[in-house]
Amino acid sequence: FSGHWKIIVWDEECFQGRRHEFTAECCNIMEFGFETVRSFRIESGAWVGYEHAAYMGQQFVLERGEYPRWDAWSGSNAYHVERMTSFRPIACANHRDCRMSIYEQENFLGRKGEVSDDYPSLQAMGWCNNEVGSFRIHSGAWVCYQYPGYRGYQYIMECDRHSGEYKHWREWGSHAQTFQIQSIRRIQQFHHHEQGMYCRKQSQQ
Amino acid sequence: FSGHWKIIVWDEECFQGRRHEFTAECCNIMEFGFETVRSFRIESGAWVGYEHAAYMGQQFVLERGEYPRWDAWSGSNAYHVERMTSFRPIACANHRDCRMSIYEQENFLGRKGEVSDDYPSLQAMGWCNNEVGSFRIHSGAWVCYQYPGYRGYQYIMECDRHSGEYKHWREWGSHAQTFQIQSIRRIQQFHHHEQGMYCRKQSQQ
Repeated sequence: FSGHWKIIVWDEECFQGRRHEFTAECCNIMEFGFETVRSFRIESGAWVGYEHAAYMGQQFVLERGEYPRWDAWSGSNAYHVERMTSFRPIACANHRDCRMSIYEQENFLGRKGEVSDDYPSLQAMGWCNNEVGSFRIHSGAWVCYQYPGYRGYQYIMECDRHSGEYKHWREWGSHAQTFQIQSIRRIQQFHHHEQGMYCRKQSQQ
Repeated sequence: FSGHWKIIVWDEECFQGRRHEFTAECCNIMEFGFETVRSFRIESGAWVGYEHAAYMGQQFVLERGEYPRWDAWSGSNAYHVERMTSFRPIACANHRDCRMSIYEQENFLGRKGEVSDDYPSLQAMGWCNNEVGSFRIHSGAWVCYQYPGYRGYQYIMECDRHSGEYKHWREWGSHAQTFQIQSIRRIQQFHHHEQGMYCRKQSQQ
């Protein structure tokens, strides 16, 4: 199972300063002599980052790639976040089998929608309004966003946490304040041996 | 064809102040007595918004839903944008038939990748680095992002513009400055008669 997740963090922007590698969760980066994380690179697996220690504050889904500064992980202007203090792997992320039910009201009441794909606009896909009252995650891991097009506050929802049940916005994360959700997507987790995209050297140009 | 696109704009945040509806492009909102657009609602179709008049400056893909203030359409903290001055429908958006080729270097040189799906992390899917040198859009409309997870600068690329050929970052938009691209997704365009998501009233709880 080791080798499935790897993140390299730096305490300065643009991969400068103090450096540390992690292959498992980090509850408080200050315990490693960091004031905060200002840049990082995800080498393998899907992760979730948090503004504060102990997995509190704003959440950010982190997939493979380079995050040179705070604008690369915070997707929202309104809630200014310049630091990441804790992070952990998303164990149940599995792009191929993702299924959840969304409900108009809290406690799984009201209209119900079945979701098994990415939805940059829930309303474009027939959802009734700009809110979701509650979620039941049957499989996989998801990220739900406040605004259309994967913008604004992020809420990471996983089948193996809370028994996959997120009955009210108070269960979505310590930063949640409303039911407003307008886009949803699956979290993908590919490892080195899985190469999803056909990518080749071209023959002579 | 009318009825396929509809946007309602306001000159104050949170759908307040002066209001105007559009079903076609707007080259300069100031010609309608607005200083700028501070909130809007997309009622139908996919649109692209621009920071400045005449479709210049930062680009934002806009799908159906509510955009109460600037943090809902600008996905990036670093390049602070509080206004939208021009916007237009994305005519060729078609979620069902989207295909493009990406190239490691400008002018369609170097390694080549074939893309026909959403990729929150190009590197996770086997792409060689954090850059794309050039794009050839065979069908549909796409939005390419600077950072993983659909964050940072957006570049809208369409099969029916530039002959679908984007040979260098200078052709991606007036705000483009580098080849850095780490996530890519299709732009969807559903209209009222297409209801993609199974959504129903629950029987007695």
